[in-house]
Amino acid sequence: MMDRNASIGVFDSGVGGLTVMKEIMHQIPNEKIVYFGDTARVPYGDKSKETITKFSRQIVRFLQTHDVKAIVVACNTASAYALDELEKEVDIPMIGVIKPGAKVASEVTVNGKIGVIGTEGTISSSIYPRYIKEINKDVTVIGKACPLFVPLVEEGLWRDPVTDEIAKRYLTELIDIDIDTLVLGCTHYPLIRETVGKIMGDGVNLVNPAYETARELKELLIREDMLRTQEPKLGDNQYQFYVSDSAEKFKRFANSIIKYGILSAKMVNIEEY
Amino acid sequence: MMDRNASIGVFDSGVGGLTVMKEIMHQIPNEKIVYFGDTARVPYGDKSKETITKFSRQIVRFLQTHDVKAIVVACNTASAYALDELEKEVDIPMIGVIKPGAKVASEVTVNGKIGVIGTEGTISSSIYPRYIKEINKDVTVIGKACPLFVPLVEEGLWRDPVTDEIAKRYLTELIDIDIDTLVLGCTHYPLIRETVGKIMGDGVNLVNPAYETARELKELLIREDMLRTQEPKLGDNQYQFYVSDSAEKFKRFANSIIKYGILSAKMVNIEEY
Repeated sequence: MMDRNASIGVFDSGVGGLTVMKEIMHQIPNEKIVYFGDTARVPYGDKSKETITKFSRQIVRFLQTHDVKAIVVACNTASAYALDELEKEVDIPMIGVIKPGAKVASEVTVNGKIGVIGTEGTISSSIYPRYIKEINKDVTVIGKACPLFVPLVEEGLWRDPVTDEIAKRYLTELIDIDIDTLVLGCTHYPLIRETVGKIMGDGVNLVNPAYETARELKELLIREDMLRTQEPKLGDNQYQFYVSDSAEKFKRFANSIIKYGILSAKMVNIEEY
Repeated sequence: MMDRNASIGVFDSGVGGLTVMKEIMHQIPNEKIVYFGDTARVPYGDKSKETITKFSRQIVRFLQTHDVKAIVVACNTASAYALDELEKEVDIPMIGVIKPGAKVASEVTVNGKIGVIGTEGTISSSIYPRYIKEINKDVTVIGKACPLFVPLVEEGLWRDPVTDEIAKRYLTELIDIDIDTLVLGCTHYPLIRETVGKIMGDGVNLVNPAYETARELKELLIREDMLRTQEPKLGDNQYQFYVSDSAEKFKRFANSIIKYGILSAKMVNIEEY
């Protein structure tokens, strides 16, 4: 029997998963969270299924040393490539970002045309179309890989003519086929939501799986009677951050996303797990 | 005593080092080469010295299992961060790309103002200024990190208005201070040499350390009486390629650089070395 007061493990290839962690912090503020960002091996987006699964397995092992009660795979590429396999290997609940995103997208579309943008890995896995069509087989789902979005976001060009130009190139084919719903299928993309929204126009719903993932986690914890009952208190170490590369850069970017004032992030030799 | 007919080891974070390998193939065509690209953990450019040294050490160990007679660190970031330490640990000659690049730059400048562009790691290490000033203490060396160049090159935007725009932003300050020599301090940059050259203008010498690195390697092998004497022949397996992630993507990009018709690249679990 798991301890209801145990932490939740959240991981990503780097900092992007903090957009998911932020939602979890908002929706279930009592919970303790252990976050791991694989900053030594980031990005995951254009690497193979085999490599991403190996990396994710090491991270899951690391998180389990913290006796987490559930694990959130806060990375679309890892959710696409590794989640199915890792779920079989561990005996605690695991939640990825793709199923929740697919669910909302299939619910909000009116004309049945859904676009998905993500890394090369996420898009070529075709996992979004698969999940969306499991819910509603009559919709059309069109995926588009946007490999430059992550470097542009990490370079801080969240509102910039260059990002506008690249976004136009990537999104034109989705506009041409008249989608009414677009899944932001990479945890970095909510940070350029404004740019994407401007190009797609008001008629297109932008789906951010982070919100829905946090909601699904909350429902799971309620259903399993596993919500944390203790109130967080000072000195509780409620949020812990671990990275596989230098913690300094992580802290700088992380604080711009979750505005929590991350004071320390510990470095872990993740290859040993 | 090393075998003069042994291979030369060449490594990089990914495919960029092939621009160096290409020069070696041209200048000393008899040599056998074992190339390793760390495609599972690419890029190196914005990661810490500690992480890059650990990764490079694993790769050197892997190359040593091939009994290489010399190792070329065909990555500026690894040369900047790891070479000094690794040279102490192995008993075969190691050559990085930075010293050769620094040497040419200090030779070709007339007005004594040299610019260096590279990854965040290479620039913040200040290793180019250090080496250049060891040769000529009277020159001024200005470094500028260009983190978007690698993703733009890998996205294939070698000649593109977006690359022009980003290059203008990065290079303006180097133009303003009137440099007459610019070191392309990242192995990806020769691929956008034309864009950089257009922006810098005809009066600026572009230094590609790849050429000079291959020349230094050749001189070293001659000096040590270690040049390969056997002529390469069919079935010789003269060039071998190893990667840490999926070989398919590597082959596609690699063939666009060295036009050798790379038929196979083997995948290695590099974390085990």
